[in-house]
Amino acid sequence: MTSLFDRHHAVLDAAVAALTDRGFWSPFSEVPSGKIYGETAREDGAAAYAALLNTPFALPGHPESGRVGAELSPWGPALGITYPAADVPSLIAAAKAAAGAWAAATPEARVGVCLEILARLNRISFTMAHAVSHTTGQAFAMAFQAGGPHAQDRGLEAVAMAWAEMIRFPATARWEKPQGKAAPILLEKHWTLVPRGVALVIGCQTFPTWNSYPGLFASLATGNPVIVKPHPAAVLPLALTVQVARAVLVEAGFPADVVLLAADAAGAEITQDLVRHKDVAIIDYTGSTAFGDWVRRHAGEAQVFTEEAGVNSITLAATDDFAATCANIAFSLALYSGQMCTAPQNIYIPAGGIDTDQGHQSFEAVAQALASAVDALLDDPARAAGLCGAIANPATLARVTAARSLGRVIRDSTALPEGRSATPLMLAVRADETGVYEAECFGPISFLIAVPDADTGIALAADLARRKGAITAALYDTDEDRIARAIDAFAQAGVNLSINLTGNIFVNQSAAFSDFHVTGANPAGNASLTDTAFVASRFRRAMWRRPTAA
Amino acid sequence: MTSLFDRHHAVLDAAVAALTDRGFWSPFSEVPSGKIYGETAREDGAAAYAALLNTPFALPGHPESGRVGAELSPWGPALGITYPAADVPSLIAAAKAAAGAWAAATPEARVGVCLEILARLNRISFTMAHAVSHTTGQAFAMAFQAGGPHAQDRGLEAVAMAWAEMIRFPATARWEKPQGKAAPILLEKHWTLVPRGVALVIGCQTFPTWNSYPGLFASLATGNPVIVKPHPAAVLPLALTVQVARAVLVEAGFPADVVLLAADAAGAEITQDLVRHKDVAIIDYTGSTAFGDWVRRHAGEAQVFTEEAGVNSITLAATDDFAATCANIAFSLALYSGQMCTAPQNIYIPAGGIDTDQGHQSFEAVAQALASAVDALLDDPARAAGLCGAIANPATLARVTAARSLGRVIRDSTALPEGRSATPLMLAVRADETGVYEAECFGPISFLIAVPDADTGIALAADLARRKGAITAALYDTDEDRIARAIDAFAQAGVNLSINLTGNIFVNQSAAFSDFHVTGANPAGNASLTDTAFVASRFRRAMWRRPTAA
Repeated sequence: MTSLFDRHHAVLDAAVAALTDRGFWSPFSEVPSGKIYGETAREDGAAAYAALLNTPFALPGHPESGRVGAELSPWGPALGITYPAADVPSLIAAAKAAAGAWAAATPEARVGVCLEILARLNRISFTMAHAVSHTTGQAFAMAFQAGGPHAQDRGLEAVAMAWAEMIRFPATARWEKPQGKAAPILLEKHWTLVPRGVALVIGCQTFPTWNSYPGLFASLATGNPVIVKPHPAAVLPLALTVQVARAVLVEAGFPADVVLLAADAAGAEITQDLVRHKDVAIIDYTGSTAFGDWVRRHAGEAQVFTEEAGVNSITLAATDDFAATCANIAFSLALYSGQMCTAPQNIYIPAGGIDTDQGHQSFEAVAQALASAVDALLDDPARAAGLCGAIANPATLARVTAARSLGRVIRDSTALPEGRSATPLMLAVRADETGVYEAECFGPISFLIAVPDADTGIALAADLARRKGAITAALYDTDEDRIARAIDAFAQAGVNLSINLTGNIFVNQSAAFSDFHVTGANPAGNASLTDTAFVASRFRRAMWRRPTAA
Repeated sequence: MTSLFDRHHAVLDAAVAALTDRGFWSPFSEVPSGKIYGETAREDGAAAYAALLNTPFALPGHPESGRVGAELSPWGPALGITYPAADVPSLIAAAKAAAGAWAAATPEARVGVCLEILARLNRISFTMAHAVSHTTGQAFAMAFQAGGPHAQDRGLEAVAMAWAEMIRFPATARWEKPQGKAAPILLEKHWTLVPRGVALVIGCQTFPTWNSYPGLFASLATGNPVIVKPHPAAVLPLALTVQVARAVLVEAGFPADVVLLAADAAGAEITQDLVRHKDVAIIDYTGSTAFGDWVRRHAGEAQVFTEEAGVNSITLAATDDFAATCANIAFSLALYSGQMCTAPQNIYIPAGGIDTDQGHQSFEAVAQALASAVDALLDDPARAAGLCGAIANPATLARVTAARSLGRVIRDSTALPEGRSATPLMLAVRADETGVYEAECFGPISFLIAVPDADTGIALAADLARRKGAITAALYDTDEDRIARAIDAFAQAGVNLSINLTGNIFVNQSAAFSDFHVTGANPAGNASLTDTAFVASRFRRAMWRRPTAA
């Protein structure tokens, strides 16, 4: 046990320090390079992925009453992989049977196991990249980063936060109460960490690992068995994760069933039965607000952590680098075809235009410049595919088609040569067309909203965030007074705000150990990755005390 | 603002240190002495209390559409005090109107206000003692301690925990991401604390201040306006608290309505409307499990922290000081006539008796020794009244009467000369009479349960705690192996365990800064006073970031 903790102690210490510093820090390189991951890592990953296709996925000892699996790559082929399926009572029973040994382990032992799981996941990042790309539609480079090292960073962040919280108070104390001239009352006190119970992680299709690892590792580190419920269209990335976790658990002397896979079939999902089960004590959910609302209402006494949907915004007030502004926004709109929870949807632009380093630009000029920036970015088909990736869910393509009639088309969406794809659709609408732009329109769809002035744009964006949720907001402005007002408005709406991003950093990006992802302070989610509240209620402390000698 | 923070900075630092040490620490003396509280404090407190009787309670500027108030002292007289009453929409509107200024205050300013409120509450501890005694029935000495300094300790503990959490992460950071040979990406990041929203504190009759201060001060320190809803029979202690809070707020330049009193009339309570209100974002509740269950189910998106009911236990396995064991247990049974949430109800005793320093004692001998210890403790009427106090709620007296038929009476309950009173009723029952002893029987009622052996007693007590909740458990034993098994069993049931208490310390007692009160890990409550989880979700962090120069 101790050896795993010792092996990873240095990275744990650095991670805990990074939590407090909140500067840039990452132990898992985002560069898919043979120099870092091994000369043959790229080929090995491709081969490992290929070997998984059209076979039964191996999870030794996992509860299994049958097999499910019907993943179709957004890039074309069926994966042909089947996974063990078990009914809800079997999964819960297996989790409960494994719970005792895991709860009894020391925090050091549990954290050691978590860190070893993450280290091994890092080593299979190329394999994971293929798995993520062929379930989410993310282009390979993004799938490598977001599905591999960035997800591992978020997992490590959760482990570090959980560790910091578990050791925050001492395990023992001596309590000496003076009694005037009499001898003091002396008690020794001891605290045991009590895990909350069976944890359920409900993954999404678009970021199966990145969005699941925080809850998975937070629950695991704090002593809870975890049932991982993948989206039926994106099972493989989490199946690989569960496979690695179970292997490490067994090697460390723990029951494999501390981590379980709840694979199911589209149309016959077992999610609701899991959520309603009385023994499920923790739920981490990423997905739509509609189902999130159901989860929150039906979870009973389970503690629920959610990342749901929202409407992210950009307000264009002014810029001293118009070209870079347009290029930066174009990238944010194109990246993974708007399928990121952080992607902007509503772009508020004063109807009278904005001041720029290229002179005053009318609303129409700004709209055209943004469209042109997207066109330029996607001019090369290979680069376009590498940026936009493919569309994860066919419903998103249908939404793009239907959306064309919602406004005046500034830039039409087109298919790319590779995969099920759609480039950004950009529509101009009036500020009073709230019925159009106030709902989340998931996918590569953005609305350029003509507002009376920039302050109104800020107010509308912040108000919408407060009412419907938002994970990100962006502002381009040169007026420091207005920037200060916007900072207040978006903070009160509980949205993270990015100001004047023009370089190689984008509003969509959220960095572990620095950015708290989702604030928990508006309807886009009730939790934040990874703050104290995300880990603190996953376990409790029980004391025993007795008199002790002076 | 800063001056209040500076004034109390030393005590804050000491409180934060005490949280981590978890040894004995208290800045508010529990000794009701003129040397500490001022030569005339006792007389001043009595006079101040007398002046409040039969008058309208003054809360300047408080929303008011009428007056309510019908408190009857368990010691006899009607208080004759009326309090401003306002309907739920008025209270919510007032809280929301005050919220902005309070949210915008720095953590230092808010914490300074909280610490000043606590300091002033400490100065009126004698007045508060009368108010608590005449609403709860606690004897004066206990009302002073539990209603005054001990409650203030718990309030301070919540402020310290909130402060530690608010400053846990920096307010600003510099994020520098290397870009190989290119210049790094540089961002400055800033975080604003975002309070959760309107907080509701629902007080109970028996410990109106002690049980309300943690939630009140945790919400207040983290920036939320607080509506304090007292039990209709115990308004005055919280009205005094609200009065002090509002005075400090106004002096510090904040709206008085940051803290509001939701007084109502028995039979016309507004609690449910408050709980269901969409703008109530935090609820702290102390009370019955039945209403707690309703609160948890109807709170919507509000974060709910509860202390509910449970069945506390003592297991007698063996002792090397039989007399002191019986005396200690007798005190725990008599103190405030069993009306503490920490009071023991079920005493598990092996049917074959236990080994003691006075030789083997049969079940009957143990039962009689316990009864005799209670008799001896209450032999002097003045001492008995000072220990038992009075019965807060007439329903508790009725319960005592009805309970006599539930088992074989080992010691009958009797009235004391003063107040509505009842000394401990002790009943012997069989282990299979679960219908009798597995339910909470609030008040001075205990069951001596004959169990096959001590291990069975431990198992029954722990199992009941897991199923029905328990805040305390006690064990008397000399077998270290069995003690170790009990430690495991009660920890898994989420109960704090006291072992072999024989001196001037009792299972009922829970010390701020050392004992986490309620674990949150069984049905006796979903929160713990005061751990990180109790404060962490009362506020969130929103970021703004922008490029910065190298």
